[in-house]
Amino acid sequence: MTETKRMNALLESFRSILNNDQILYGDALKPRYHHIWHMDQSLEAVAMLLPSSTEQVSEIMKICHTNDQPVIVFGGLTNLVGSTETKGNEVIISMERLNSIEVPDLQSRTITVGAGAILENVQNTVAESGLLFPLNYGAKGSAQIGGAISTNAGGLQVIRFGMTRNLVLGLEVVLADGTILSSLKKVIKDNSGYDLKHLFIGSEGTLGIVTKAVLKLVESPNSRISAFVGINDYNKVVEFMRFVDQGLAGTLSSYELIWKESFITLTKDPSIDRAPLPYDYNYYVLIEGLGSNQEQDQIRMEHLLENALENELILDASLAYTSTELKWFWNIRENVDALVAVCDYDQHFDISLPIHAIGDTIATISEQLSALEGVTHVFPFGHVGDGNIHFMIGKIDESDNLRKAINNIVYQPIKGLKGSVSAEHGIGLHKKDYLALCRTDEELLLMQQLKKTIDPKNLLNPGKILDPN
Amino acid sequence: MTETKRMNALLESFRSILNNDQILYGDALKPRYHHIWHMDQSLEAVAMLLPSSTEQVSEIMKICHTNDQPVIVFGGLTNLVGSTETKGNEVIISMERLNSIEVPDLQSRTITVGAGAILENVQNTVAESGLLFPLNYGAKGSAQIGGAISTNAGGLQVIRFGMTRNLVLGLEVVLADGTILSSLKKVIKDNSGYDLKHLFIGSEGTLGIVTKAVLKLVESPNSRISAFVGINDYNKVVEFMRFVDQGLAGTLSSYELIWKESFITLTKDPSIDRAPLPYDYNYYVLIEGLGSNQEQDQIRMEHLLENALENELILDASLAYTSTELKWFWNIRENVDALVAVCDYDQHFDISLPIHAIGDTIATISEQLSALEGVTHVFPFGHVGDGNIHFMIGKIDESDNLRKAINNIVYQPIKGLKGSVSAEHGIGLHKKDYLALCRTDEELLLMQQLKKTIDPKNLLNPGKILDPN
Repeated sequence: MTETKRMNALLESFRSILNNDQILYGDALKPRYHHIWHMDQSLEAVAMLLPSSTEQVSEIMKICHTNDQPVIVFGGLTNLVGSTETKGNEVIISMERLNSIEVPDLQSRTITVGAGAILENVQNTVAESGLLFPLNYGAKGSAQIGGAISTNAGGLQVIRFGMTRNLVLGLEVVLADGTILSSLKKVIKDNSGYDLKHLFIGSEGTLGIVTKAVLKLVESPNSRISAFVGINDYNKVVEFMRFVDQGLAGTLSSYELIWKESFITLTKDPSIDRAPLPYDYNYYVLIEGLGSNQEQDQIRMEHLLENALENELILDASLAYTSTELKWFWNIRENVDALVAVCDYDQHFDISLPIHAIGDTIATISEQLSALEGVTHVFPFGHVGDGNIHFMIGKIDESDNLRKAINNIVYQPIKGLKGSVSAEHGIGLHKKDYLALCRTDEELLLMQQLKKTIDPKNLLNPGKILDPN
Repeated sequence: MTETKRMNALLESFRSILNNDQILYGDALKPRYHHIWHMDQSLEAVAMLLPSSTEQVSEIMKICHTNDQPVIVFGGLTNLVGSTETKGNEVIISMERLNSIEVPDLQSRTITVGAGAILENVQNTVAESGLLFPLNYGAKGSAQIGGAISTNAGGLQVIRFGMTRNLVLGLEVVLADGTILSSLKKVIKDNSGYDLKHLFIGSEGTLGIVTKAVLKLVESPNSRISAFVGINDYNKVVEFMRFVDQGLAGTLSSYELIWKESFITLTKDPSIDRAPLPYDYNYYVLIEGLGSNQEQDQIRMEHLLENALENELILDASLAYTSTELKWFWNIRENVDALVAVCDYDQHFDISLPIHAIGDTIATISEQLSALEGVTHVFPFGHVGDGNIHFMIGKIDESDNLRKAINNIVYQPIKGLKGSVSAEHGIGLHKKDYLALCRTDEELLLMQQLKKTIDPKNLLNPGKILDPN
């Protein structure tokens, strides 16, 4: 059978289970793209399918399985490591029509949503019920829940609420052969055999297609207190973290570290244009507490900061007293575009390190990067309370050599310190070459064995994370 | 080769890697037992091995793998579902000598411990450093960390700190063929490929032998406030949970529900002999907050309770003001022996239900049990904040028929409500027949496939959780 005949037969099979408007191919793919940063590049694919139910996803996979047809699943296309990059021979399943958001269960504190539901819509629905879905990150307006689950997304409140993995109670997944693995439970504790959901959470669509999930909700906080503090010595960054975490007793929700050079650039951005603290310190920490009483929690934070100043744990502090100030503080932390803007080209990282090693390691990496020809800027910042440091590196060109030289410097300490090349973005295509820096040969072999057991034909997101052995 | 010759050859192989005092067999097994409740029954096994390093565990498994020799791993023998029951043809590996407890890493807030370390010893070492390892349950004086991890143990503070799964950052495991899978990381976030540790956590020793772990620690609380409240309507039990959880903003660490009949028996026990509240209510809830300031947190709790009384969320409340009162309150909740004492024979459960369904479901189960011939007592209590209800049933004999009739009543609603036959104790041998009530055929098949991939010869804790297909 020629390739064209094969494709036509495949499309014919899809037509037997989907309506015509659920099958896009040829010219209909032109306005589609594989990433929100590449909306100018048309999609290469056999076809894009738009199922509207789990059963349709299952039927699609049965057809693909019979025909050895590789598949890539599209969510909100906000992934940062190439997990949704396609080849022309792949079929794309877009989850955008599986976007149901059920009414929250207020007693069990759960919500059941389709994989295509957009994170921000879920947050809003939950908020209307007086609860909080505490997963939050920049791309929330586009990111879909299925993608957040498949990549175990992190974000700004992991120190308190955990990553996506901690917020999923029940999961429904379609396997490569079309089997529906449904466990849409609302229970918090379940030790009945292997906890299969953890296999699919964070496996970047290579083991199964997430179609639906039961998410865990928490009570809405009644107060939000943020403060910037200035510190010169990394050991005191850690000491103050422990001090404020103990003092806030369970309400500390963010502990974000911004290195001086990043802080200066972030606060000089025209959209912000002033700094809450002078440029006198090596480290700027943005802390946040989500509590129950704005007035009392503010007094408690003030006492903690005064105490920390007296004991020289911190050298300076600025507390956000109004919602305008709160917004100002968080814009500084989240305004990654301001860092990108001063770079001709940029390269970003999300490494994980043991907290004790971050100060020295980032100092060494920064020095080595600054000494590297072609590097113009080094901007470290990150969720230090979780050991997760982001880097934004400015550079003069997009050459492979320079990219690899930068990678080598940033990733060099990972193995020795038992860190990770990816704290939260995942491996996808872009970090495959570096995976072995943080996983042993025995671990990689077991991953390959699991992939082979669950997707023996290597049909689901093939080539992502690691190749078959 | 005769069986005796085979055994002798096996022992000879073990002698090549272990000292004589690390190999117990024959008469040396007589003082040993398979469970702390059965210390009068001598152990049946080919031999018990006492390795003192991960490498020795690996060497043992290489020998067992070559010889198709099944293995059972012993921790503290406190498991409640028969997971450590042995047959005479099995080799036992006891982890008691792998009991290293390293100095806590105060900056990364982690501790690295051997699988044989006793939970209470880990708690104490951590406490000496001013930190807290927030896993806590009755058997802590005997239970070993490796067992807690293998069974994903729960306990009294899951609502705030999660189950064991949430407290493990790094894990070292020996596979059936002797492969050492080592990932002793201190990082909180790691999205570099499949998160393999979750496969081994909670798999009851059927997929690998946990030898070492890096545990996550939290700051020690400076305050502890407990209170008993009385409520008549289950909907208000849930409403008050949400009210107090929001009011305590992250510091609520326990929300334990005791049904009236259980409360009466628990407080009439001679060792307690008085009740903190009158016997006027259907439900008694014991709440606890772990905070940062005893005085302020006490005032906050008083205000919350007053407010809840005014709004008729609760009908009565009693706050523990002294450490004696605190101990008294918690003795009531933990004094399961008092329930056992009034029963001729007993049968216990740890089911999981969606929180919204607990009130009606437990009422129905209790009625049905009370009407069952042979049942003398029905004592429900549990961690209602986590949806986990324990049952202690009193009965007149140990007959299989009565046991099964009781099981059928308690487990009957599980499937329809998407609950679990085990919230925290696991499946082991005792609940194998009921596993299909809370896991689908597709899930069971995938579990069998995983077992076959990781332990193809079915050597590790064979027959526990589920049989090969």
